[in-house]
Amino acid sequence: MSEIATLELTHLQLGQAAVTREDVVAREEPLEIRVEGRSVAVVMRTPGHDEELVAGFLVTEGVVTRARDILEISQCPSVNNEFGNIVDVLLGGAVVNWESLTRHVFSASSCGLCGKTSIESVFQKFTPLAGDQCSVSSVQSSVPEAAPLNTEHCKQNTEHSAPQVSQELISQLPAKLRAAQETFSKTGGLHASALFDLEGNLIVLREDVGRHNALDKVLGYALQRNLLPLSQHILLVSGRVSFEIMQKALAGGIPILAAISAPSSLAVDFARDSGQTLIGFLRGETMNVYAHPGRLLSPTQP
Amino acid sequence: MSEIATLELTHLQLGQAAVTREDVVAREEPLEIRVEGRSVAVVMRTPGHDEELVAGFLVTEGVVTRARDILEISQCPSVNNEFGNIVDVLLGGAVVNWESLTRHVFSASSCGLCGKTSIESVFQKFTPLAGDQCSVSSVQSSVPEAAPLNTEHCKQNTEHSAPQVSQELISQLPAKLRAAQETFSKTGGLHASALFDLEGNLIVLREDVGRHNALDKVLGYALQRNLLPLSQHILLVSGRVSFEIMQKALAGGIPILAAISAPSSLAVDFARDSGQTLIGFLRGETMNVYAHPGRLLSPTQP
Repeated sequence: MSEIATLELTHLQLGQAAVTREDVVAREEPLEIRVEGRSVAVVMRTPGHDEELVAGFLVTEGVVTRARDILEISQCPSVNNEFGNIVDVLLGGAVVNWESLTRHVFSASSCGLCGKTSIESVFQKFTPLAGDQCSVSSVQSSVPEAAPLNTEHCKQNTEHSAPQVSQELISQLPAKLRAAQETFSKTGGLHASALFDLEGNLIVLREDVGRHNALDKVLGYALQRNLLPLSQHILLVSGRVSFEIMQKALAGGIPILAAISAPSSLAVDFARDSGQTLIGFLRGETMNVYAHPGRLLSPTQP
Repeated sequence: MSEIATLELTHLQLGQAAVTREDVVAREEPLEIRVEGRSVAVVMRTPGHDEELVAGFLVTEGVVTRARDILEISQCPSVNNEFGNIVDVLLGGAVVNWESLTRHVFSASSCGLCGKTSIESVFQKFTPLAGDQCSVSSVQSSVPEAAPLNTEHCKQNTEHSAPQVSQELISQLPAKLRAAQETFSKTGGLHASALFDLEGNLIVLREDVGRHNALDKVLGYALQRNLLPLSQHILLVSGRVSFEIMQKALAGGIPILAAISAPSSLAVDFARDSGQTLIGFLRGETMNVYAHPGRLLSPTQP
């Protein structure tokens, strides 16, 4: 499987017509690691060099130290492994502390492990939102200059993609984030997660060495004030968007997620299925919309 | 506890004398989350807004959805909680899937949970290296222009801080990484981890959506070729350095770790104790050395 995935997105620039583009994103897929048949971890990873990933995981867990400690790393021959996302390790006599090693085990799906099943297992717990009824690629058909982002057949369904906000409002969020990020400017070492309302007012900003923690803090703030679900809010994250970030945003019911940097392939798949609007590379007056652009209004929209 | 920690580091610029500076880094400490007395997770986090972090964690785990689902979040009154890194949650009748929730449990230390104990528990598994015998702050005393980085009393112990490389060699690594990072330039969404030898030759470069995975792939590559321990190598990572990155680098026996971006406080503490040289903000001809600068030779050094 390739390390990158090609997809269509909507490129927006203030004052310009929306443009549909092909672009590539880093692929993200789950890998279940089994040791002598026993599931010890599921990691979200970029496919490629899976044997090295598994061997290195066992090095850092202190299970192996020499090449001969591992007899074989192989794809599981199971019928459930049609995606090549399950590997099994045969050890050469290394002593395993199973209790310590299995602390990474996720509740793995019983069916074929792939990004799609990871997404579906999240949807069993958290209900998807109602996004655009048109797919992203259908936006490509014809977008007249300075027109609403929705194509004709999507406009019939705009009531399904509430709330809606202007591109301009979205483009102003990074500057507001930076202004509020005092700690960031001090250390350059913190991830930020910020919640805005539909007028672009900053509700809460939290930072952490872990990007997931920063988002958890925002959601905890919202829970404590009975703001959940955050159906009238926008989330801005300082870095990249992975599957887990999308999952946490959905748990909070957030319909619009914007990021300064790139999303992963699985984050995009997730957003398209979950009905969430996903914006990446939000810089100055330009942004890439990877899923559900119908929530964004171009400047001429009423 | 503050979100940032102040520390002393050695600032290097090619052709200039080493300068000792005070600077701040993002603090990183473990937080053990207990639900009704049962340990369900240990997360490495930046202290501050811990109640929100815990509440948000429970939202994203699907345990709670309303403020009243949580009766109380409190610091554990245990004698082992002198650092404020253990919290307990009392739920208001929410139904808990314990099996799913406890998949995050690390093998928590039985004594007071703090960054120091996290470091010590790693050292029980992986032996620290022999670093400079002088502390970083002792470098401050007097560093004559274009002199070796070690102060006099440290020079007596240079044999303890092998291997040694020139600042110049280190400063050339980011350009080599970028040149090799084809995928990165395509997606802008991947973390990179690269291993170099002491002549600055690239041995292996791996990328992943997860920074830990990229490093695991590098270590797996090394294991499979019987290169462990990597005592004559330099690791360069594209992003930030956390506790877990340092831990994995030590598992591989890597004496010199450089990063394009910032380290966390716990990464610095770890490196100072583990004997590893830690370089951050490696950009152009400047770099900050947070631990064990004795392995770096200034241009005038033979």
